[in-house]
Amino acid sequence: MKIDECRKDFPILQRTMNHRPLVYLDNGATTLKPQPVIDAVMHYYTYLGANAHRGDYEMSAQVDAAYEGTRKKTASFLNARYPEEIIFNSGSSEGLNQVALMLSNQCLQAGDVILSDESEHASSVLPWIHASQSRKTKVEYIPLDEEGKITIENFKKALHEKVKVVCLAQVSNVLGFEAPIKEITKLAHEHGALVVVDGAQSTPHIPIDVQDLDVDFFAFSAHKMCGPTGVGVLYGKKELLDALDPVYYGGESNARFDRSGTLILKETPLKYESGTQPIEGVLGLGAAIDYIQSIGKDAIHAHEWELKQYFLEKVKSLKTIHFYNEHAQSGICTFNVFDKGQMIPAQDVASFLNTKGIAVRSGTHCAKMLVDVLQVPGTCRASFYIYNTKEEVDQLVSALQEATLENCIGIFF
Amino acid sequence: MKIDECRKDFPILQRTMNHRPLVYLDNGATTLKPQPVIDAVMHYYTYLGANAHRGDYEMSAQVDAAYEGTRKKTASFLNARYPEEIIFNSGSSEGLNQVALMLSNQCLQAGDVILSDESEHASSVLPWIHASQSRKTKVEYIPLDEEGKITIENFKKALHEKVKVVCLAQVSNVLGFEAPIKEITKLAHEHGALVVVDGAQSTPHIPIDVQDLDVDFFAFSAHKMCGPTGVGVLYGKKELLDALDPVYYGGESNARFDRSGTLILKETPLKYESGTQPIEGVLGLGAAIDYIQSIGKDAIHAHEWELKQYFLEKVKSLKTIHFYNEHAQSGICTFNVFDKGQMIPAQDVASFLNTKGIAVRSGTHCAKMLVDVLQVPGTCRASFYIYNTKEEVDQLVSALQEATLENCIGIFF
Repeated sequence: MKIDECRKDFPILQRTMNHRPLVYLDNGATTLKPQPVIDAVMHYYTYLGANAHRGDYEMSAQVDAAYEGTRKKTASFLNARYPEEIIFNSGSSEGLNQVALMLSNQCLQAGDVILSDESEHASSVLPWIHASQSRKTKVEYIPLDEEGKITIENFKKALHEKVKVVCLAQVSNVLGFEAPIKEITKLAHEHGALVVVDGAQSTPHIPIDVQDLDVDFFAFSAHKMCGPTGVGVLYGKKELLDALDPVYYGGESNARFDRSGTLILKETPLKYESGTQPIEGVLGLGAAIDYIQSIGKDAIHAHEWELKQYFLEKVKSLKTIHFYNEHAQSGICTFNVFDKGQMIPAQDVASFLNTKGIAVRSGTHCAKMLVDVLQVPGTCRASFYIYNTKEEVDQLVSALQEATLENCIGIFF
Repeated sequence: MKIDECRKDFPILQRTMNHRPLVYLDNGATTLKPQPVIDAVMHYYTYLGANAHRGDYEMSAQVDAAYEGTRKKTASFLNARYPEEIIFNSGSSEGLNQVALMLSNQCLQAGDVILSDESEHASSVLPWIHASQSRKTKVEYIPLDEEGKITIENFKKALHEKVKVVCLAQVSNVLGFEAPIKEITKLAHEHGALVVVDGAQSTPHIPIDVQDLDVDFFAFSAHKMCGPTGVGVLYGKKELLDALDPVYYGGESNARFDRSGTLILKETPLKYESGTQPIEGVLGLGAAIDYIQSIGKDAIHAHEWELKQYFLEKVKSLKTIHFYNEHAQSGICTFNVFDKGQMIPAQDVASFLNTKGIAVRSGTHCAKMLVDVLQVPGTCRASFYIYNTKEEVDQLVSALQEATLENCIGIFF
C-alpha cells in the first residue's frame, strides 16, 4: 500500500477538534487506529470470544491459533530467532520494569552499575533508579553531546568494568535522536554487560532486527504503532528468558504447584504470561504489524522525514521558533515559540494550537532529566506518523505564526 | 433491563461452533461481550483516540474525562470510599501480584504467615508462595471442610498471632463456594492481619461492598464481567495505598526525578499507573459496569442459581454425573461423568461436548492443589452467566446423556 492512501483507513480522521478538522500530531504519545486493527479487535468480540490456552473447544482453539500466530508474526517483525523470545505484556513500561526487576533481583550485586542517560523516558530509567535503592546498585549516565545525542565516543567514556547493564531508548521520545545501539551493544558485550532497549519510539518508525542489533532485551508498545493500548512486547534472548524467573505468578504460567511450596513453571514464554492476557490487544497488534508492513518501515521513515524537513523549511522564515532537534532523523519535532524575545510557555502554545484543531504535546514528555540539559522547563513536541500530510504541516505553521504571547494567553480569558 | 432480554445484546451468540448453535458455558474463564461494551471500545478508536493524562488538547481532555469518570463509576460499583482507591491494571492476576509483592517487600518480616487455602486459583496463592521463598515468610492453609468450603470455624483454627495477611478468593473458581469474607475480615483485623480478596469470580455475579466487607485489598478482572481482556482493578484502602510504594515505575506516575536519585511519586492512584494504561479497556469496563447494573446483581445471581438448580434437577436422573459442588450458591457447576462405573477423563467429556457446540472447561482450573482435596485429576466446569438459558441447559443435559466412554473416545478417531 502507498503511504499517501492510508488516511482513508483511519476513521477518527473524520472527527473535528474545536470545530476544525483534526490535525493529530501527538503520535509520540499514541497513534490513531486503522480499520484493520479495529476489525481485528471486533472479530474477537463478535466471533472468537474465548480465553486463550484454557479450553477444550473450537472457539478456544481458534483464539489460541490467532494468539500464538501473532507471537510468530511479532518474532518475524523483530527478526527474533524464536517465537518463544516474544513475551506479551501490557506495554513498554511493563517490559522495562520486568527486566529491571528480574536483573536487579536475580543477577546484579551491590556496586554493579546500570548505564542510562539523561534523555531517557521515566519508564526506561526509573525502574533502575528505584531498584538501585534497595539493591545497592548504581545508575550512571552517559554524557549527552551538545545536541542531546548519545555518541559512541561518550558511551566509551562512560563504560567501565562495573557496568553490568546498559538500558537506553533506541530513539529518544523528546529529541528523536537514534542511539547507535548496534555499536553500543558490541562494546557492552565485550565488557560483559547486558543491553536493554526501550523500543517504544523506534519500533513504529524504523526497521528493527534484534539479531543484527544483538540486544538482550527489547521492549515496545502496540499503541504507538497503530495498535491497541494495554498491550506490548518484551523480546528477550531465549537463553536469558529461560534462565530468569518472572516477576508475576499465577494461572497458566505454571506446570504444577503444591502446598509444600513446590512450584514448577512452564517453559518460556508462557511462564511470563500469568493470568488472562490482553487477547484482543494481541490480535490488534497482529493487525497493526500487518498494516505497517504493508506500507513498509522505509516508506514510513522517509515520509516522516520528508514532513519534518518541510516543517523545518517553513518555520525557518518565522524566526520565532527555536528548534531543539533539527538534525534528528525522525518525525519528532521539538521546539519552543518566542515572542518579543520571550519564550511562550510550551503548554500555552499547545493550548493555542488546540483551538486550531491541532494536537501537539507540551511539557517534559516524561523525560524529566532532560530539562536540565536543555535548560528549559518544557517544550512543544509535534510528532508525525503515516497519516500526516504537508497540508497539516501548513496548518501547524500557519497556527504557529499566530502564536503570540497575547494570543496564547488570550485563549484562557 | 430484564435479564431474559439480554441475549440480543451479544453479537457472538450468532456464531456456531462445530456447525451447532454456540452454547457458551465457560464463563468462569471469560465472558462474552455485549454491544454497549463493544461500542465503548469502538468509540475510543473512532472518536477519542488520544492518550490519557498527557495532552493539552480537547481529544486528550475527553479521554481523561472518560477514563477518570470510569474510576468514579468503579468506586461506586464497589462502594469504595474514594475514587483514589481504584487502581486500573491488567487484571486480577496483576492486582494480586502487586499486593503480594508490595506487602512482602515493604511490610512483612521473616516468619510472618500468609493464610491461604487449597481451593485457591494460582493467581491468588502463587505470588505469596514465590515471595515467601526469598522473604522467608510462610504460606499456611485454612483447612477446607468435606465439601471444599472455607468455614469460619476452620478459619478460626488456622488464625494465629504470626498471621499478617489473609488472601482468599471470595468465590472459588472451581467449586463456586462463597467464603465468609466479612466475618473472616473482622477476625483477621482483630489479630492485626490484612485481608486481600480475589474477587475475579465474585464481582461479576454478586453485589460487592468493600466498605461493608472492610477488606484491605480487592482485585477483579473486566473480562469475566462482560468487559475487555487486559484490564482489571485493584481496590485498596486509601491509607494503605498512600503508605505503600508501587511495583512498577515509569511515565506519568512520578512528579519529579533527577540524576541524584531523587524520585517523587504522584499521589494515589496515579503513582500506581505507570505508562500508558489500557484506555479502551478501562472505557469498556465502564460500559460493562453500566450494563451489569442495568440488569442488577441480584437478578444475575438469581438467574445463575435458577439455571444451576434446573441443571441439578435434570442430571439427577442420569446417575452418571458426579457433582462436586451441589450446595455452592453460584452458577458454577463442577462435575465428572461416569460410564460403567469408570470416570471418563474430564478433557474427553469437554471435547465431546465441543462436538455438540457446547463450551465447558476441563482440568484443574488453575487450582492445582484442589485435585488432592477432591482426589480426582480434573473436573468439568460449566459456569453460567446472564445470557445462558434453560434451553442451553437442556442441550448440555442431552449431550451428557450421550457422553459414554465409547462416544467420548470416538471423537478422536
